[in-house]
Amino acid sequence: MTTELYPRERLAQVREATARAGLGAVFLTPGPDLRYVTGYDALPLERLTCLVVPADDEPFLVVPRLELAAARESPAGGLGVEMVPWDETDDPFALATGRLPRGVAKVGVADRMWAVMALRFRAALPDAEQVAAGTVMRGLRVRKSPAEVAALREAGAAIDRVHRRVPELIKAGRTEREVGRDIHDAILEEGHALVDFVIVGSGPNGASPHAELSDRVIRPGEPVVVDIGGTMPSGYCSDSTRDYCVGEPPADYAAYYAVLKEAQQASCDAVRPGATPEAVDAAGRDVIAAAGYGELFIHRTGHGIGLETHEDPYIVSGNTEPLEPGMAFSIEPGIYPGPHGARIEDIVVCTEDGVERMNNTDRDLVLID
Amino acid sequence: MTTELYPRERLAQVREATARAGLGAVFLTPGPDLRYVTGYDALPLERLTCLVVPADDEPFLVVPRLELAAARESPAGGLGVEMVPWDETDDPFALATGRLPRGVAKVGVADRMWAVMALRFRAALPDAEQVAAGTVMRGLRVRKSPAEVAALREAGAAIDRVHRRVPELIKAGRTEREVGRDIHDAILEEGHALVDFVIVGSGPNGASPHAELSDRVIRPGEPVVVDIGGTMPSGYCSDSTRDYCVGEPPADYAAYYAVLKEAQQASCDAVRPGATPEAVDAAGRDVIAAAGYGELFIHRTGHGIGLETHEDPYIVSGNTEPLEPGMAFSIEPGIYPGPHGARIEDIVVCTEDGVERMNNTDRDLVLID
Repeated sequence: MTTELYPRERLAQVREATARAGLGAVFLTPGPDLRYVTGYDALPLERLTCLVVPADDEPFLVVPRLELAAARESPAGGLGVEMVPWDETDDPFALATGRLPRGVAKVGVADRMWAVMALRFRAALPDAEQVAAGTVMRGLRVRKSPAEVAALREAGAAIDRVHRRVPELIKAGRTEREVGRDIHDAILEEGHALVDFVIVGSGPNGASPHAELSDRVIRPGEPVVVDIGGTMPSGYCSDSTRDYCVGEPPADYAAYYAVLKEAQQASCDAVRPGATPEAVDAAGRDVIAAAGYGELFIHRTGHGIGLETHEDPYIVSGNTEPLEPGMAFSIEPGIYPGPHGARIEDIVVCTEDGVERMNNTDRDLVLID
Repeated sequence: MTTELYPRERLAQVREATARAGLGAVFLTPGPDLRYVTGYDALPLERLTCLVVPADDEPFLVVPRLELAAARESPAGGLGVEMVPWDETDDPFALATGRLPRGVAKVGVADRMWAVMALRFRAALPDAEQVAAGTVMRGLRVRKSPAEVAALREAGAAIDRVHRRVPELIKAGRTEREVGRDIHDAILEEGHALVDFVIVGSGPNGASPHAELSDRVIRPGEPVVVDIGGTMPSGYCSDSTRDYCVGEPPADYAAYYAVLKEAQQASCDAVRPGATPEAVDAAGRDVIAAAGYGELFIHRTGHGIGLETHEDPYIVSGNTEPLEPGMAFSIEPGIYPGPHGARIEDIVVCTEDGVERMNNTDRDLVLID
């Protein structure tokens, strides 16, 4: 499975894309790009680890000698990539740039590379223009392979299992933080390697899309927005939002929740190859606006997901790059009237002829006795 | 306590240091620099959050509208910093740079800013030279205030409590991963907010300084290197290494462990204002070399610690910047003969007339029945 998820041919694909983009090389430090290309989930450290992919030469991995064993044991060890270890008093930036042809005009640095390292690369190659390696990597990463879609499906099923346990955890009298801690444990128990975020927004906190866990006590009749996600051992992420209420919700809630559910469905229905992200955004937004709640949907419809929780494509007004099969992203409209709010979120994948949802728990408000 | 740890005057200090360094402004995105200046522990997101500190004007925080409530509730909310929220279709880089004087020649970007954001800043200010903001921030952050030293002391005491529990967790027949999972839980139970790393290196894995947790079963007579650390709710980090053995260690172990302990003491004794990091490194290294183990001490003696586990000053050959009171760093020599190895690590702080250790558990090999 690892070989499928992180196949050997990625290195050649990156090299071709690097050449096609007119770059002399890309420099990939620990993060999602490096993992995508090699499977190596390297720690971000102040000591440079960097995969150098020259357009016209073999790739190599510059690695601190202390990390050499870990690099060799990672999937990168099976790719036949040359490893170039460096010692405490070496200059790893000289090692990483020394093999490139003199006068290289343009190089790519990983989007998430620390700026302090990008500046060291600039000093080592003062005549080369630096661009974001995302210009090369995005085109590869944005269309998920069948193995990647399978990994996202597995992540979706795992977070769905957590949502099915949430009704046992939310009780009137418990605090958001207490519920959040239990959800944290459940995310790990259901197969994630890491907890990425846990939002438990009760009452007015549900009206703030990125509320932090608080010591607020959950009371009967208060809707609770639960937006949770983690990273699976595969490296791929989950993210799903559902809404819960202990007892009966406020009188005005049912009306806007019904509109929200319809909007989320409308955006999902709009997903197919050739549709634009902004059209997917508009499909749901129009439903909400037509019902008079337009001002209360205060964020974009969604974000891409894969090795990062937030990556391309963003489902937002102004993004007109047509969807293609394999693109994976969230559909998560929200309506936030103020004393409470609601959001419904699924990860979906654009298929050859439509859409597949990775999250499949019931989308109605979950009533808790 | 928060006001002491993240005092108001930091903003003015950064502004002065920015001017003194000849920079027109520094841009601080989520990470340790932003937290140091404002106390705001912002999430690193693709949406730009950035504290702009101009040399000649008031600082302001550019923040996605979705994060505005969180920013206001953070310590940053009490500093009187203007918050400039932006909406999904705004250009936050234009907002962050628009108030700077035309023709600003040089700006600083946070060391850990994502390269893709640094490149956006470069495009927004094409005529400004970019330098690492660390050149400004390092001088402030490297000398810890009394409140910061107190936070490191608290972190040291917390990880010491974890080490005192380790003898109950290591048993012959358990795997490194099983022991590591229990240590993970203990790190949280003893007061840390985050687990940063857990190294349980048994037998040959103890001879690899950065070994990953494995499914290797710990056997009697095998030394185990336990190197662990986390981040406290204060933001400050812990890091300490001790050595354990179920039953009697190998015959050659006692001899090199005694040398290691003497070397660690010698490096600690070398710490005082005016001493250089390379002299501190040499003090222990000389002891190890004189005993014939010089080739087996394969890494630097230590790293600074504070809001990051690894930061300035690095205790390594070539670093000749004299120590000053308030500087905090690890002293962690190791000897790695091969079939097993050992390391002893304490965090220490340079005081007015010497050194204070933050870690105070016994430094002998801990024998487990």
